[in-house]
Amino acid sequence: MTWEVFNVIGTIAFAISGAIVAMEEEYDILGVYILGIVTAFGGGVVRNLLIGVPVSAIWEQGVLFQLALFVMTAVFLFPNNVLKHWTKWGNFTDAIGLAAFAIQGALYATNMNHPLSAVIVAAVLTGSGGGIIRDVLAGRKPLVLRSEIYAAWAILAGLAIGLGIAKSPIQLYVLFAIIVTFRVLSYTYKWRLPNRTLKARSY
Amino acid sequence: MTWEVFNVIGTIAFAISGAIVAMEEEYDILGVYILGIVTAFGGGVVRNLLIGVPVSAIWEQGVLFQLALFVMTAVFLFPNNVLKHWTKWGNFTDAIGLAAFAIQGALYATNMNHPLSAVIVAAVLTGSGGGIIRDVLAGRKPLVLRSEIYAAWAILAGLAIGLGIAKSPIQLYVLFAIIVTFRVLSYTYKWRLPNRTLKARSY
Amino acid sequence: MTWEVFNVIGTIAFAISGAIVAMEEEYDILGVYILGIVTAFGGGVVRNLLIGVPVSAIWEQGVLFQLALFVMTAVFLFPNNVLKHWTKWGNFTDAIGLAAFAIQGALYATNMNHPLSAVIVAAVLTGSGGGIIRDVLAGRKPLVLRSEIYAAWAILAGLAIGLGIAKSPIQLYVLFAIIVTFRVLSYTYKWRLPNRTLKARSY
Repeated sequence: MTWEVFNVIGTIAFAISGAIVAMEEEYDILGVYILGIVTAFGGGVVRNLLIGVPVSAIWEQGVLFQLALFVMTAVFLFPNNVLKHWTKWGNFTDAIGLAAFAIQGALYATNMNHPLSAVIVAAVLTGSGGGIIRDVLAGRKPLVLRSEIYAAWAILAGLAIGLGIAKSPIQLYVLFAIIVTFRVLSYTYKWRLPNRTLKARSY
Repeated sequence: MTWEVFNVIGTIAFAISGAIVAMEEEYDILGVYILGIVTAFGGGVVRNLLIGVPVSAIWEQGVLFQLALFVMTAVFLFPNNVLKHWTKWGNFTDAIGLAAFAIQGALYATNMNHPLSAVIVAAVLTGSGGGIIRDVLAGRKPLVLRSEIYAAWAILAGLAIGLGIAKSPIQLYVLFAIIVTFRVLSYTYKWRLPNRTLKARSY
Repeated sequence: MTWEVFNVIGTIAFAISGAIVAMEEEYDILGVYILGIVTAFGGGVVRNLLIGVPVSAIWEQGVLFQLALFVMTAVFLFPNNVLKHWTKWGNFTDAIGLAAFAIQGALYATNMNHPLSAVIVAAVLTGSGGGIIRDVLAGRKPLVLRSEIYAAWAILAGLAIGLGIAKSPIQLYVLFAIIVTFRVLSYTYKWRLPNRTLKARSY
């Protein structure tokens, strides 16, 4: 049940984030649907692959497809002057998708009794897959590799679940809210981690 | 049988389209083979993944590999002055690959009794997978996201098969010809769908 | 056993090559880890997919994760003035990953009694998968499609294994050393293959 809730939340959130990126890049209406669908279900395909669920299981989610199409239509028709900060909404829905899929990846790896390091990697790869597909197709640098803190929150999900801190549905929902909140704070206040330059091409 | 015909048509068509894009980007001869092979069999991998066929089944197609290599060699050696409009040929073979794989995706989803919305998404993702891999590797914006109508024809395939309009082999071949024709008309006459701009970066 | 050795070598080598590319692109410390992990395990996912091993088997490699994290930390902390030629080290570790995974792909296809053409394609796709993921995410043109000879050495691995020239562990390690050596010579001396220009956009 909790699993299914995260699946619906993550899929819808990634569909919206893909649709918003497509509108920012001035795609036509079908391009908006395509990038939304590819982000949402491409992210689901990556998650299914990584956690060992048959990829073709995504076709059984007929209601979810219709819901995603409905939500993307709503986004496309939304009046511009009511909602001016599209980029922030794109980042916000991406944060929701990241949190939902990272939790699913970590839960799967924990249930299979994999070691903590594998749980963390599962959280990161599962959570960032949908956004990576979206950004690569739109010709953007993937959010997960940009300078504001992103993957750290998927690692947090992996730690909390792998160490057994978050177990019950309630705890998982709280963890979900925490991850979304920290990710929103990260891009709002441009939190950064230290980096190290090689000045690769100046030799 | 019909299935196998579409598989051969789609694979060969994507191999040629990949080879042409590689020549346009001035890759060396091995780059031409590589991009052709990755487009053709990468598209097949995406299709197999999405329709639940083991991905490793693609290695059993030894004759198809040899056919693809032969056809790409022919394209590489083709005299320039005979065939001037390479870009159009690249788009034409891509249209054939799109139609063949979209029909396979839709047939699979219909046979598994999935709802119409899933059939349509299966047609779009299966049909556009090979071209997306080719364009991402060549550093181009994927055809499916460009402004000339593209995915709409995969949706048409999904509708025709999902609603039971095209069932017999003959009907499927006619559908195939219709999709290729409409896609060719789309890029020849630059048919477009409405779009909506967010002017994302001007806020 | 030999198989496992190549798996460890390939995974670690791709992790380092991803970390180096991330430092060249001035990513923060987490970006370095992410690109390293995605390159190493993404390459493993592609290999598992193509050779029919369940993708979720990668999570069982807890020790390998820890080893990869340790090695990437060492790379990140390495003093700049000791090791000036980062780009060459990135190319060198990529060559090791290419050779290790190409041999695994070819071995798999040979053991399944697939024809020689399939063995060669398996070697190329399996060997180049990790590097392709790394370069696409970093917004670079994939090494496999650049002008210095790259895929030819994976083809060599496919030929040597498909024709039964390299069979015993010793022979496979020698083949591995030969592929790495030739790849290093290729980028050091900028070996090139003939290409053919279409001057696509000048019509």
